[in-house]
Amino acid sequence: MIKTDILIIGAGPTGLFTVFEAGLLKLKCHLIDALPQPGGQCAEIYPKKPIYDIPGFPEVLAGDLVDNLMKQIEPFQPGFTLGERADKLEKLDDGTFIVTTNKGTKHHAPIVAIAGGLGSFEPRKPAISNLADFEDKGVEYIIRNPELYRDKNVVISGGGDSALDWSIFLTNVAKSVTLIHRRNEFRGALDSVEKVQELKNIGKIELITPAEVVGLVGNDKLEEVVIKRGDEVFNRECDHFIPLFGLAPKLGPLSDWGLEIEKNAIKVDNSLDYQTNIPGVYAIGDINTYPGKLKLILCGFHEATLMCQSAYQRIFPDKRYVMKYTTVGGVQGFDGSKKEAPKAVIKAFD
Amino acid sequence: MIKTDILIIGAGPTGLFTVFEAGLLKLKCHLIDALPQPGGQCAEIYPKKPIYDIPGFPEVLAGDLVDNLMKQIEPFQPGFTLGERADKLEKLDDGTFIVTTNKGTKHHAPIVAIAGGLGSFEPRKPAISNLADFEDKGVEYIIRNPELYRDKNVVISGGGDSALDWSIFLTNVAKSVTLIHRRNEFRGALDSVEKVQELKNIGKIELITPAEVVGLVGNDKLEEVVIKRGDEVFNRECDHFIPLFGLAPKLGPLSDWGLEIEKNAIKVDNSLDYQTNIPGVYAIGDINTYPGKLKLILCGFHEATLMCQSAYQRIFPDKRYVMKYTTVGGVQGFDGSKKEAPKAVIKAFD
Ligand SMILES: Cc1cc2nc3c(=O)[nH]c(=O)nc-3n(C[C@H](O)[C@H](O)[C@H](O)COP(=O)(O)OP(=O)(O)OC[C@H]3O[C@@H](n4cnc5c(N)ncnc54)[C@H](O)[C@@H]3O)c2cc1C
Ligand SMILES: Cc1cc2nc3c(=O)[nH]c(=O)nc-3n(C[C@H](O)[C@H](O)[C@H](O)COP(=O)(O)OP(=O)(O)OC[C@H]3O[C@@H](n4cnc5c(N)ncnc54)[C@H](O)[C@@H]3O)c2cc1C
Repeated sequence: MIKTDILIIGAGPTGLFTVFEAGLLKLKCHLIDALPQPGGQCAEIYPKKPIYDIPGFPEVLAGDLVDNLMKQIEPFQPGFTLGERADKLEKLDDGTFIVTTNKGTKHHAPIVAIAGGLGSFEPRKPAISNLADFEDKGVEYIIRNPELYRDKNVVISGGGDSALDWSIFLTNVAKSVTLIHRRNEFRGALDSVEKVQELKNIGKIELITPAEVVGLVGNDKLEEVVIKRGDEVFNRECDHFIPLFGLAPKLGPLSDWGLEIEKNAIKVDNSLDYQTNIPGVYAIGDINTYPGKLKLILCGFHEATLMCQSAYQRIFPDKRYVMKYTTVGGVQGFDGSKKEAPKAVIKAFD
Repeated sequence: MIKTDILIIGAGPTGLFTVFEAGLLKLKCHLIDALPQPGGQCAEIYPKKPIYDIPGFPEVLAGDLVDNLMKQIEPFQPGFTLGERADKLEKLDDGTFIVTTNKGTKHHAPIVAIAGGLGSFEPRKPAISNLADFEDKGVEYIIRNPELYRDKNVVISGGGDSALDWSIFLTNVAKSVTLIHRRNEFRGALDSVEKVQELKNIGKIELITPAEVVGLVGNDKLEEVVIKRGDEVFNRECDHFIPLFGLAPKLGPLSDWGLEIEKNAIKVDNSLDYQTNIPGVYAIGDINTYPGKLKLILCGFHEATLMCQSAYQRIFPDKRYVMKYTTVGGVQGFDGSKKEAPKAVIKAFD
């Protein structure tokens, strides 16, 4: 059982910044995310694209924003349960909560902050009848550990940045890389496209287009994929088939937690603290809704900050928290680190 | 008469970021501030101190944050009325507003956003009976134009960073610099203190401590200050006397505008759009209050963003604004500039 003060569901920008604001209040956080890495939409959908409306950054790449947030929260040593989806919420008699993931990991906390964005990211899957039979037996939708592919024959399918970038990356690891796309045209960053062309020219990536994987063959584990190009249908030996058709967010299990849902989002009290209809459960960032709600990163930051104050009062009903500016009070990490402004000098001149 | 879409009172971080969010909605802004420079508390009180709780910045100097915001809003060409205090608010029959400053400058806009922080910064003044007689006739509380002091004899009084830093700066401009403080000890950044010691050693700054200026002498303009050190009282010829005792914020004229005031701040509707009891007048950032309010920079950013959406609807009641992410839609400046994410390439491989 993982125990913490604030259990955060979703490690997007909102969930990450919550760790910082909680840390200032000396509350510890643990984050659960269905994705294998923190950063939410910023890390998964557009890490290399610029954002222009983060206050104080005339321009920042979404991936760099995530890196900065990770650095900012480092002193507060958050825990992470990554690659698992929060599936079940139970309220105990003492008012605390247990959250269980799809892999059975249990988390216990007095406060749950749902920062689930548009929902947990689930891969879009190709329509192949026996696909499920080969999941984790040669078929993967997300690349968690590239070492799995060392000296293996890999077939990737997809026509966007993920398909291009992983094809490039795996040429250094796998025995062979075949990239299949249903159109002739790929869509991606200029340098990725150029690199694939280069790797194709020297025979490191084999391209099969316009084509689709329509069947899977194997006993116990994947041995061949069935490819259809026009009227032609043929088999290709391989150890792994990785369809990279993007991830689609699904509100999923959260919708069964007894929370008030409106417009596919969780209703909260924006006039006070972004609490949901279940006391002790808050919803912040893209996942919540209230009159005038904007699904913007900077709004999630504000919501997280107010939410942490309310969580503190819930955990310590008898304490009064006196806010101190970070500039004045500094930042004391749970790791013993301390950041503070250089002190003024008091001096009489000779 | 200065005309604009959103008239912002206060050019602190909240007011500045409002220009950006308004700009995305193609609304033009003009800012009024009592201080001679933009940046509010960050620029005036602690420009060289680090802030740790701006999301995405593990650490940023307050002055750098202001510089970044100025750069971020540059494409939207805001207008500035600096060094003037907004004194009067009138509502016209058509629902628009005229705001007049203490110097008589008039501004006309359909929307007023009060981002006045703790109020307009007014200098703390020494208790000298005939002080007012010499204001702008040799006595200044804020240094607006250092050239005023070229080849003049200047007496500065105060014991903090401003007094130290301006004394240092003016040694390169003035004929003589005398620094008077009622204690022997000064309090400031280490490098400022060291520099003053150095300049004192080579006779470029004269220090008189523990002492106070207790009188002013002159016809029409300042000619001498009367200095008291212990029991000793003596006169010193000078052209300028600059008491730098800090600036204290005063809600001041705003409190007579018919706004609902609570805890020295303006009450707003935080459940919707941070509007005050006067429709069309919003209050954002440190100057507003609502249940759970935190006087933090990141909160002002969120409030400004929601407020701009509401202002847009007020100006264009019949239009429906469809929000576009900056990453997707880019940023179109009023100066013809355009920032946008590099486009994906669509390519069939040879
Ligand atoms: C292409 C694009 C461009 C954008 N541009 C901008 C922009 O310019 N400015 C801006 O402000 N915003 C922009 N956005 C929106 C911005 O990315 C979101 O507002 C932001 O990511 C929301 O952060 P969040 O932390 O609330 O949620 P998310 O980033 O969505 O993160 C939520 C996380 O929660 C996880 N999760 C959800 N449910 C569960 C569960 N049950 N169990 C485990 N994990 C779960 C998800 O896997 C996800 O990782 C853009 C979005 C896109 C797609
Ligand atoms: C030492 C110190 C450390 C701080 N540390 C932090 C920190 O670590 N994190 C954090 O989030 N916050 C911190 N703050 C608070 C932060 O600076 C404020 O929250 C922020 O400046 C508020 O921004 P604002 O734009 O709302 O108002 P302000 O920055 O106060 O700006 C308001 C401006 O409005 C002007 N004004 C007001 N009335 C009028 C009028 N009638 N006419 C013309 N001009 C007018 C004022 O002159 C002023 O320039 C700190 C503050 C101080 C003093």
